[in-house]
Amino acid sequence: MTAPKAYIFDVFGTLTDWRTSVTREVAAVLPQMDAEDFATRWRSEYQPAMERIRTGKRGYVPLDEIHSENLSTVMKSLKVKALDKEQHDDLARAWERLDTWPDVLPALDQLKKRAIIAPCSNGSIALMTHLARHAGLPWDCILGADIAQDYKPRPAVYLASCAALRLPPEDVMMVAAHNDDLEAAQKLGLQTAFIPRHTEHGPNQKIDLRPTGDWTNCVASLLEL
Amino acid sequence: MTAPKAYIFDVFGTLTDWRTSVTREVAAVLPQMDAEDFATRWRSEYQPAMERIRTGKRGYVPLDEIHSENLSTVMKSLKVKALDKEQHDDLARAWERLDTWPDVLPALDQLKKRAIIAPCSNGSIALMTHLARHAGLPWDCILGADIAQDYKPRPAVYLASCAALRLPPEDVMMVAAHNDDLEAAQKLGLQTAFIPRHTEHGPNQKIDLRPTGDWTNCVASLLEL
Repeated sequence: MTAPKAYIFDVFGTLTDWRTSVTREVAAVLPQMDAEDFATRWRSEYQPAMERIRTGKRGYVPLDEIHSENLSTVMKSLKVKALDKEQHDDLARAWERLDTWPDVLPALDQLKKRAIIAPCSNGSIALMTHLARHAGLPWDCILGADIAQDYKPRPAVYLASCAALRLPPEDVMMVAAHNDDLEAAQKLGLQTAFIPRHTEHGPNQKIDLRPTGDWTNCVASLLEL
Repeated sequence: MTAPKAYIFDVFGTLTDWRTSVTREVAAVLPQMDAEDFATRWRSEYQPAMERIRTGKRGYVPLDEIHSENLSTVMKSLKVKALDKEQHDDLARAWERLDTWPDVLPALDQLKKRAIIAPCSNGSIALMTHLARHAGLPWDCILGADIAQDYKPRPAVYLASCAALRLPPEDVMMVAAHNDDLEAAQKLGLQTAFIPRHTEHGPNQKIDLRPTGDWTNCVASLLEL
């Protein structure tokens, strides 16, 4: 294996603690709710909504719209009175205001000195741009779902990201806390790095605590990359 | 007019002095040539090559490939012996190593504090990424030809750039040293800023010395924005 010329990153979970951040935002707007339960339900609508697009049942829409629709779905299922439009839209954008795990910013600063760094997320260019400005993520460019008009783990997303950099997959390393993300990337020839995030799904997390594949790297902190 | 939520920039000419930079690279590799004449001829192949794509005579290919093909064209027309592949590819990438005009970096640092900043160039994501790393351009994301799979001044490029940011055109300001670029953007509802670059085409430049349209802003330095 040669040194990667680019590192591309999963963002929700791998770089950011979405559960804590979204819980905080829900608590501020809906103080009557169990905010952590609400955040978990909101996130649980994420994969089914993307799956409709991955399977062609719906054309591509950016994740911003899915987050907004799923917020409405959760509100209705919990029989919460709808927020006014401005409040709804602002809460839907909680995903632009996530906190990063402590190793992320120092590691990205170091990695950027020797290679291109970019998100390869299901978040849109707009969402990733706002999140980068919020969290200080020093991306060289923004790759991922929007440029492929499809959602991970569909091959088009990884391949479009490599193609945008004009790099063969073997020169690109996908970094993720999710084994299924790495499995899809590895099948296409990308290098892979796994980092467990033991509390992404809360204190009783059962999945992605350890690598389940033969990844190029397995690290406890992004600083080890 | 409200304050723009994003500033998007033409890059070749507006932010970078391509003529001086490319001349320097040509001189290093082809010392027997008139390097400035060579650079000018190379650049003069740029619009006709893109025009074939704009008019649908050829499918979209990234500008990196056009630069490489046009380099071969100029070499042949001047009857210069072809470079070996590595040297050719490296010279073709001279466009990733351009110098910026002196006002660019301080102005982008300031603008980034109050709005999103991104290139809206005919350069590819790869080309813009390498150039940003070379020149220290602090982009929030990279927009332009690649995400539209078409070339300015075709409407798709400006519209795809606004759409990627999820902003209506009126919230986005296109900044360019070329009146035709601004004319295309203005027709689509974007705000516009003109900055003359009096020596982009050399000491005897005749075009784009002054604004020819009713642009939102006309500035002598990007720091005035």
